[in-house]
Amino acid sequence: MDGVAVRAAGTAGASETTPIRLRPDAYDMVDTGDPMPDGRDAVVMREHVRYCGKAAELRAAVPPYQHVRSIGEDVSAGELLLPAGHRLRATDVAAAAAAGATHLLVRRRPVVVILPTGEEVLPIGEPTGAGEITDTNSLMLATQAREAGCEARCLPVEPDDPAGLASAVSAAVSGCDLLIVVAGSSAGRGDYTARVVAELGMLAVHGVAIRPGHPVVLGVVGRTPVLGAPGYPVSAALAFDIFAGPLLAGLAGAAPRHRPRATARLGRELASPPGLDDWVRVRLALVGGTMMATPLPRGAGTLTSLVRADALLTVPAGLAGYQRGEQVEVELLRGIDEISRTIVAMGSHDLALDLAASALRAEDPLVTLATSSVGSLGGLQALRDGLCHIAGSHLLDPATGEYTLPHLDRIMPGAGLRVVRLAHREQGLIVAAGNPSGLTGIEDLTRPGMRYINRQRGAGTRVLLDHELGKRGISPGAVGGYAREEPPHLAVAAAVAAGRGDAGLGIMAAARAFGLDFVPVTREPYDLVVTASVMDSPLLAPLWALLRSARFQAAVTELGGYTTTEMGRCIR
Amino acid sequence: MDGVAVRAAGTAGASETTPIRLRPDAYDMVDTGDPMPDGRDAVVMREHVRYCGKAAELRAAVPPYQHVRSIGEDVSAGELLLPAGHRLRATDVAAAAAAGATHLLVRRRPVVVILPTGEEVLPIGEPTGAGEITDTNSLMLATQAREAGCEARCLPVEPDDPAGLASAVSAAVSGCDLLIVVAGSSAGRGDYTARVVAELGMLAVHGVAIRPGHPVVLGVVGRTPVLGAPGYPVSAALAFDIFAGPLLAGLAGAAPRHRPRATARLGRELASPPGLDDWVRVRLALVGGTMMATPLPRGAGTLTSLVRADALLTVPAGLAGYQRGEQVEVELLRGIDEISRTIVAMGSHDLALDLAASALRAEDPLVTLATSSVGSLGGLQALRDGLCHIAGSHLLDPATGEYTLPHLDRIMPGAGLRVVRLAHREQGLIVAAGNPSGLTGIEDLTRPGMRYINRQRGAGTRVLLDHELGKRGISPGAVGGYAREEPPHLAVAAAVAAGRGDAGLGIMAAARAFGLDFVPVTREPYDLVVTASVMDSPLLAPLWALLRSARFQAAVTELGGYTTTEMGRCIR
Repeated sequence: MDGVAVRAAGTAGASETTPIRLRPDAYDMVDTGDPMPDGRDAVVMREHVRYCGKAAELRAAVPPYQHVRSIGEDVSAGELLLPAGHRLRATDVAAAAAAGATHLLVRRRPVVVILPTGEEVLPIGEPTGAGEITDTNSLMLATQAREAGCEARCLPVEPDDPAGLASAVSAAVSGCDLLIVVAGSSAGRGDYTARVVAELGMLAVHGVAIRPGHPVVLGVVGRTPVLGAPGYPVSAALAFDIFAGPLLAGLAGAAPRHRPRATARLGRELASPPGLDDWVRVRLALVGGTMMATPLPRGAGTLTSLVRADALLTVPAGLAGYQRGEQVEVELLRGIDEISRTIVAMGSHDLALDLAASALRAEDPLVTLATSSVGSLGGLQALRDGLCHIAGSHLLDPATGEYTLPHLDRIMPGAGLRVVRLAHREQGLIVAAGNPSGLTGIEDLTRPGMRYINRQRGAGTRVLLDHELGKRGISPGAVGGYAREEPPHLAVAAAVAAGRGDAGLGIMAAARAFGLDFVPVTREPYDLVVTASVMDSPLLAPLWALLRSARFQAAVTELGGYTTTEMGRCIR
Repeated sequence: MDGVAVRAAGTAGASETTPIRLRPDAYDMVDTGDPMPDGRDAVVMREHVRYCGKAAELRAAVPPYQHVRSIGEDVSAGELLLPAGHRLRATDVAAAAAAGATHLLVRRRPVVVILPTGEEVLPIGEPTGAGEITDTNSLMLATQAREAGCEARCLPVEPDDPAGLASAVSAAVSGCDLLIVVAGSSAGRGDYTARVVAELGMLAVHGVAIRPGHPVVLGVVGRTPVLGAPGYPVSAALAFDIFAGPLLAGLAGAAPRHRPRATARLGRELASPPGLDDWVRVRLALVGGTMMATPLPRGAGTLTSLVRADALLTVPAGLAGYQRGEQVEVELLRGIDEISRTIVAMGSHDLALDLAASALRAEDPLVTLATSSVGSLGGLQALRDGLCHIAGSHLLDPATGEYTLPHLDRIMPGAGLRVVRLAHREQGLIVAAGNPSGLTGIEDLTRPGMRYINRQRGAGTRVLLDHELGKRGISPGAVGGYAREEPPHLAVAAAVAAGRGDAGLGIMAAARAFGLDFVPVTREPYDLVVTASVMDSPLLAPLWALLRSARFQAAVTELGGYTTTEMGRCIR
């Protein structure tokens, strides 16, 4: 306390009517934090001292040790400051330094070494040919290890040769606390790892009843645990999470990472093979106060299912799945706050919506627009089932020639839905650059040898094709490749670009993204369908504001084939 | 899928009764992950193929594209993979690499520079004299900045000279995104920072209505924001948290850190000065299903209050505090899971309990034993108020000469409390090494010039002293220093060690921890008091197991002055 240091006994009897004057040798001026001068045992606040010449006048007695802080008040020698096994934070190291503990004995970070295998596996950055695979697993596993507080090192890719693999494993185990051998994606590859581990040390487990991730190898070589991870990226990521994570936490003396859990309602039936713990990635959406879960694509190769997942849902081995509407417990991969502020749009894929997702986030890091490509009809059904906030649709009604609106009364009669126009888009045939087959329109799809690339049932573009064929009296069977479906929207363009097809119906922006040619067929509206209550919720306000901004409209026009004059207009 | 690649059209009509045989030139063997051979459009599982010589026999027709995964199934060129402003995780970088995005444009980490000031401030590791302070703030703030994802650099301590400070600030701002000037603890120090910021750039704020942390300075020099942090460590830590954290998150394009919140019940009345947002550190204890909050020491210098805090409770400026029993919302500093698994012991400080805290954590990183030194009586009252699981007591009942038990019926009549013996401890006079005054016992405390160091009211040791004085017919007033209280237990020994007192009553282990001499006075039991329901809860099981372990008992004996023959015995 700023004031004067005194001897308390010398202030006895001081009062408003009987002030006491202390001579200069009976007090010292002190500031907060100063040590107590010798012979003083109390401090009087500056505001309570009057000076008469050099004498300090006090009008109240003070008790001993008033405004005196003891040495050791915060922490005293011999007292426990931090228990063993405590993860040091900023305040901890500062408190330790304040206590004179300038050297702390800590556990070192565990060292994880990753050994990718397989002739077909090439390092990131090298161009891949047919059947070759970029080694993204090493980067992913090393990053997972670093996220878990470890040091990580990646070895060069080891070819599928048991002798070579054995010597690589032998060399690697001496320098790390955990060796992860990543199998390629070919069948039977895990067997090499298991065999090598069994030969060099102890093979504990080969194959676990989880999906994805079944062919996991667990063993020990020397004194180092070895994890054989499957080559499929989702399997590899989950194998790390399930097996390496708790082991590394134990080595670091820390509690295993424990993701927060939440309860969600399944909007769709979820079938699962019995006999396996099935790790299903789900998207969550807080719709009307209920947390709804939608399973994402379940293939072990669809890494984006993990990128896009909000949570993991484990279907235990004893269950064949869950019913629609069932309450399930999920493990959160994103914060519940973040999920609560996520706008979930399902339906037809659209490039302008992708652009909106980035633009919204750039403006406010708390806002997420998550889109799922399930086709226009799928989106409307998801909206009906309460799985999303927005259904993105360009679904033609062949009977009336109108888009989307006639379907709403069929799918959600009496729901009082609102519809906001996103944009008009040019639909046409996406063909190779330079249009080498010289296609002029829908009629040309019947040419012999045509390799048309179709979209799945329920996709607006599939309905449009059927409509355009019908108008011209062309039977679908007359179009070569009609049976071949590429589910995601841009995949049609990708297939044409790769020469795996001659033509597909799609939007001009998709053709342009791949540098392909485009034969216009029609112009269609793409609309956002929402419930009345969600329409006016604060959640969607940033999206509506974005759609009205001239800058965003210009960016969408820039994509090609978009007309934004009605963007953001409420058409119902 | 492992199997044979075929042309689907070539399998038409195949059935159990009319199998089809494909000649070697009509199929190819493929493994999972292989590219589709030219001219094939479907795969038949290995299990469904029979070989007749070199011909493959099929007993079912397959549709086109069966078991064929499309290129772009996971993600297609042109599709949004990650929005702008997304914090990259392991799966994200792997997905980006898989999509061929080997170079990502990211925001760099913000750079934070810390400039400590004050002649009395010395770097960590340098011995401090009277009135000198170790610069723990630079380490703490730099670590806080790194925890927030920034790069941090600490400058040497700058003396309190406005001209020197101005040139140091000018030089520092050009190399960072945020400059933090740390004032010493002396009064008026912040004024230098404010004056320098006003001279060199723009001073926006000097002094904010928060406690602790009032004299915060906010301004801009050049294009760099400058934060003037108070020198008190708790104030400095909170100033970073409140002002620097959100700013740095904004610079990184990320959402500000949002700590989870929880509701807790205040076990004690909490007074707070109105007109200031009061940031109170609290300990939480989940007792009988209710989360109870106890405020920790509130001084801006008690850094351990932040080390030990489970949560922050903000009393807004408009409130004068909270009533006992009121529900309050707190910001969690530890995970709720961890807090739920924390054994909270309040009462008299004991070195064996400190040892138990470390031993429990070392055995299971999920178990925490948190102790608060509030004296024996304080502990029993906290137990009565539901603030803790365990009251640690060595409270003598002078009427019966018994310890702790007679008090229970007075403080919590009819509560059916259980009592577990921790140990017996030697109590005596802690005196300087070599016992220079030649003290032989309680009688000698009346010597003229005696500087005795007492404990606070409600402390078991205080009650013991009063009892021992009474037995001998000595009036407390006859003991020099009786009025001087050192709240924490070990502080008595620390004060003797520092020569600030001649003697204090305490346990032998405390004397030994400081290398002091010890004049035995009596032997007392130290007991753990718990409610019957908590006694048998899984929460406390690890502690009871520890108390029964021979290894732990040996470690306690090692402390000196402890008898552990009754350790862990349930005496009521």
